[in-house]
Amino acid sequence: MINKLVICGVGLIGGSFAAALKRANAVKHIVGVAAPGRTLSSLNQAQQLGLIDEVSDDFAHALCNANVFLLATPVGQFDGILKLAAQYCAHDTIITDAGSTKQNVVRLLQQYFSDSLDRVVPAHPIAGAETSGPQAAQATLYEDRNVILTPLTETNDNAIDTIQQLWHACGANTLAMTPAHHDEVFAAVSHLPHVLAFAFMREIGQRKNWQELLNLAGSGFRDFTRIAASNSQMWRDICIANRPAILAELERHIDQLKVVQTLLQNSDADALAQLFADASNTRQHSTN
Amino acid sequence: MINKLVICGVGLIGGSFAAALKRANAVKHIVGVAAPGRTLSSLNQAQQLGLIDEVSDDFAHALCNANVFLLATPVGQFDGILKLAAQYCAHDTIITDAGSTKQNVVRLLQQYFSDSLDRVVPAHPIAGAETSGPQAAQATLYEDRNVILTPLTETNDNAIDTIQQLWHACGANTLAMTPAHHDEVFAAVSHLPHVLAFAFMREIGQRKNWQELLNLAGSGFRDFTRIAASNSQMWRDICIANRPAILAELERHIDQLKVVQTLLQNSDADALAQLFADASNTRQHSTN
Repeated sequence: MINKLVICGVGLIGGSFAAALKRANAVKHIVGVAAPGRTLSSLNQAQQLGLIDEVSDDFAHALCNANVFLLATPVGQFDGILKLAAQYCAHDTIITDAGSTKQNVVRLLQQYFSDSLDRVVPAHPIAGAETSGPQAAQATLYEDRNVILTPLTETNDNAIDTIQQLWHACGANTLAMTPAHHDEVFAAVSHLPHVLAFAFMREIGQRKNWQELLNLAGSGFRDFTRIAASNSQMWRDICIANRPAILAELERHIDQLKVVQTLLQNSDADALAQLFADASNTRQHSTN
Repeated sequence: MINKLVICGVGLIGGSFAAALKRANAVKHIVGVAAPGRTLSSLNQAQQLGLIDEVSDDFAHALCNANVFLLATPVGQFDGILKLAAQYCAHDTIITDAGSTKQNVVRLLQQYFSDSLDRVVPAHPIAGAETSGPQAAQATLYEDRNVILTPLTETNDNAIDTIQQLWHACGANTLAMTPAHHDEVFAAVSHLPHVLAFAFMREIGQRKNWQELLNLAGSGFRDFTRIAASNSQMWRDICIANRPAILAELERHIDQLKVVQTLLQNSDADALAQLFADASNTRQHSTN
């Protein structure tokens, strides 16, 4: 149980964290603080929904006596917000985030919190949806989901413990890895699939008969393209932040598509069947 | 209500058709007939599950007095089965199928049923799953789903009517289009997504840490790759049957990926965000 949690970015991710902690009675007071230049309308909505107790546009006031500061905006906004937060964070406030990329976040934290890296706990909850905003938040979002922590060598165990306990109170599991390994893994299993789904849907959307195509599509299409409805700014930021790893994944994937293209051009039915069977076998090992 | 329905291929698709028609009391007697060279084990299982009333490995016996013959195997087996069925179909038996491609099926029907094209009703139910076999069949599979009919100019209205009524009894909607348009549309919204999902999963499966990747993947990955667990033989057959259209789609998609690749290489955040937003807007128009 902590006394005061401050969240910047009370949308699907930050709002669900707040809702889950409230449900678990794990936090006494939750403040939503507006990113610089942002209106309070989304935070007011979050307060009306009961996700947070207080709305503030003043980092100095909001961060006063805060036990934990969570940054849960799209990662493209992290630079300005962390710079500002660093000026007002007390020396016992734990700094954490929910960004989908970790190496770039760690670099910013090292830059702005160089004197207090012991209380920095970068994190990434593996949960999300194609929806966004406070109205999409739900207390159950993190149940049985993984949260990846990428603590620094400087991070102290108490800070890690507190963040772990908060996530456990949300029903999530926590595990740790290096920021670099995190970014490689999620380039492969999350960032690339989003890029592919966006590219596929964009191609469909450029056709004259796109509406007919959507109307005739079945459940396979629906599931394959669900993530293409995701927030475009969030994914732009992720692509820029994890650019080298995503580019490497994209190149591997295009190479694989060219293999399939050649098999299809040659009508090589046996090799196509084998490639599909390999894929199908791998997919059937997935327990998610 | 018809008296006798004969199904070759009592798996997910044929078995669900049988189950739905039984539930609707739309057919008195359903016979499952084995494709040449196939054992009866799957058909016996289908009978034990109550999907069909009779199992036969004799097309002459099975097709005697049949009102409707449904072919629902993977399309790669259609040639041999239609050739055999043509020898034994009575002149008032309606011939239909559930193949995912239509131009190649129409060519085979024109070849083997040239004297009786008036009772040929090619069809494609837009329903499926990554599961297969009679144990995956369910009476509800076709509820509110589309079934595409691609009748020939020779097909008579009574035959179309009967097939439409059977699908309506399953809870499905029916609509008609040309075989060529069908194959173009489904290359875009079904065949290409399956090929992409297979290629993506195959690439993942070739890595040393594929098990870790599967364990860490979230719900976006789960939905994006669901169709990669599909039956590899069925999809090999579809790829070969609709090869030109799928190759054209694959080329368009690779071109689109190269556009994304270039934007990412140039760190062109604005153009990436616009491309993602276009995709997201299109996807949000989908009612499926």
